[in-house]
Amino acid sequence: MTADDVTLDELPLREDLRGRTPYGAPQLDVAVRLNTNENPYPPPPELVADVTESVRAAAAELHRYPDRDAVALRQDLAAYLSVSTRVPLTERNVWAANGSNEILQQILQAFGGPGRSALGFEPSYSMHPIIAAGTRTDWIPAPRRPDFTLDTAKAAELVAERAPDVVFLTSPNNPTGGSIPLEDLEAVLRAAPGLVVVDEAYAEFSSQPSAANLLDAYPATLIVSRTMSKAFAFAGGRLGYLAAAPAVVDALQLVRLPYHLSTLTQAAARAALQHAEQTLASVARLAAERDRVAEALQGLGFSPVPSDANFILFGRFADAQASWRSYADHGVLIRDVGIVGHLRVTVGTPEENDAFLEASKEVPR
Amino acid sequence: MTADDVTLDELPLREDLRGRTPYGAPQLDVAVRLNTNENPYPPPPELVADVTESVRAAAAELHRYPDRDAVALRQDLAAYLSVSTRVPLTERNVWAANGSNEILQQILQAFGGPGRSALGFEPSYSMHPIIAAGTRTDWIPAPRRPDFTLDTAKAAELVAERAPDVVFLTSPNNPTGGSIPLEDLEAVLRAAPGLVVVDEAYAEFSSQPSAANLLDAYPATLIVSRTMSKAFAFAGGRLGYLAAAPAVVDALQLVRLPYHLSTLTQAAARAALQHAEQTLASVARLAAERDRVAEALQGLGFSPVPSDANFILFGRFADAQASWRSYADHGVLIRDVGIVGHLRVTVGTPEENDAFLEASKEVPR
Repeated sequence: MTADDVTLDELPLREDLRGRTPYGAPQLDVAVRLNTNENPYPPPPELVADVTESVRAAAAELHRYPDRDAVALRQDLAAYLSVSTRVPLTERNVWAANGSNEILQQILQAFGGPGRSALGFEPSYSMHPIIAAGTRTDWIPAPRRPDFTLDTAKAAELVAERAPDVVFLTSPNNPTGGSIPLEDLEAVLRAAPGLVVVDEAYAEFSSQPSAANLLDAYPATLIVSRTMSKAFAFAGGRLGYLAAAPAVVDALQLVRLPYHLSTLTQAAARAALQHAEQTLASVARLAAERDRVAEALQGLGFSPVPSDANFILFGRFADAQASWRSYADHGVLIRDVGIVGHLRVTVGTPEENDAFLEASKEVPR
Repeated sequence: MTADDVTLDELPLREDLRGRTPYGAPQLDVAVRLNTNENPYPPPPELVADVTESVRAAAAELHRYPDRDAVALRQDLAAYLSVSTRVPLTERNVWAANGSNEILQQILQAFGGPGRSALGFEPSYSMHPIIAAGTRTDWIPAPRRPDFTLDTAKAAELVAERAPDVVFLTSPNNPTGGSIPLEDLEAVLRAAPGLVVVDEAYAEFSSQPSAANLLDAYPATLIVSRTMSKAFAFAGGRLGYLAAAPAVVDALQLVRLPYHLSTLTQAAARAALQHAEQTLASVARLAAERDRVAEALQGLGFSPVPSDANFILFGRFADAQASWRSYADHGVLIRDVGIVGHLRVTVGTPEENDAFLEASKEVPR
């Protein structure tokens, strides 16, 4: 026997992991990839040049550990949020990590964990229950309306009754696309005895104001999480962040792995933030394309769910999995998010969207 | 009240985190920094140029998520390990993450956690118990001999008796410096009912062969963890990795956050690995300096602990904390690792080591 012969079953793995498969969207080598809600526009040459120059400067000090507290990056993120949300924030309000997944994991390490619970309204971002499981936080699934909107009165009631340690609200919601108005967020915030994490991964695409506007009103319970993966076209750079009371940032420093953010990540993200205006110019274009695609889907007899993000959930399919496969056969990779009768498509370039709409005419319903 | 006024005490933090302070070596702005076991030699210009070019090429695709499985990087790491340890390994044997801390966290998420235990021989790398706490794994501290070496017969007995789910063996051990010969590792491996993680963060400095040589003999229980932070002079790049049976890699993919390693990290680490020979040329120089510094310390009446790494634990001090402060006042930052009567110094450049030795003549004993 050699190391290659051992199977997963023979390892002393945790029982609750046995039989599981790794999370991740199926990846296929097709021409049109509209499956992971990436921004389809490559970074502009000026951004690539600035990222490269920042990395060149930082690389001379690669033998040294990075700034453990990523202060300069947090200042830049705070400046960006202050302008875009009109809520004055400083680096003391901001924390950053390797993607918003690591942000959420740190939140559950500090405020969730064994003997504690987190509640989310499903369908929503599928990593929420997975990160809850990874941190051994009990997961409480809660329902949405049949049209996928959130009944905030009922939500607030349920939150008061179940008293979870952490509530996840996703706005705009992935994979369904709807945003939550501030007054509805407040209804849940008023009812929540513990933390409320408003996951704003797609906030730049949304017509609703950021939950950051509520930070002063709910300082001990509100966290707003964000990412540079979507509107910022920086999915490869892996930079998630949050806005919260400074005390929340202090709390996360108790659980973060030291030096979690590399010198290169900090340098590259700062360079990318300097081009925010240019990068975010794609947001309006993508929102317009989203509305065009939704209308065209409607015209083809589909039922797109109203979206405030850069993707559209649409149906109905008799067999969503078979239709997903048919899209792939037509060279268009979209996402089967496990909602009966529905698939999710990311808004791409006009050419990609046209290819998707052409395929939509031919796939089985 | 605003968000700024809330204190940590008012947050719904986990009880076990209350009163804690974040992990991290104190950082002071002094001329000679010998406190975190970094390689004192900056990356050579050729490496900086290659990292920069790799990042430039990768940055054009920053709007896309990275390779979730980091296959090309794992191939390069396997090739490096195959040459340096003379154990033939492929990418299926290798996993990578943001620093070896994330590697260790993933190991404990998959094989430790609530209701499970991890055992380590103290003093050792202080992140082992911290990551155990972060994953809610019970920590079993076990002793070393008074001279900090490992009594492997007793260690094997204890491991058999306590039957921890994970055993940490650090070779060379941080902060004491000694390596564990393969036959001694085997004594513990034979006794261990669960995993044995051999933390080889400082392996390149060691005179002992890598535990990777034992992978075929203990395929279901041995993991060898490594880092590019030390000998590779890549602390800022945050790249930890491991060698193990392919099934172990499969297990870690069940708990890793998807897309945990950025495109930039993967590109930069691959570029740095191409310069392994050049970078690792510093290892022999540092080992020679280590021996010179140890001898000089002895000549000054100190008792350096024999080291196989790029640092030296030495004593005795009546008040180690006061002496640490005195070193800092002399412009030399070393590390108080909490061992009574001792301090740890990283081996730096000859000039830095001379400055340290000069200061050593003047600090209070």
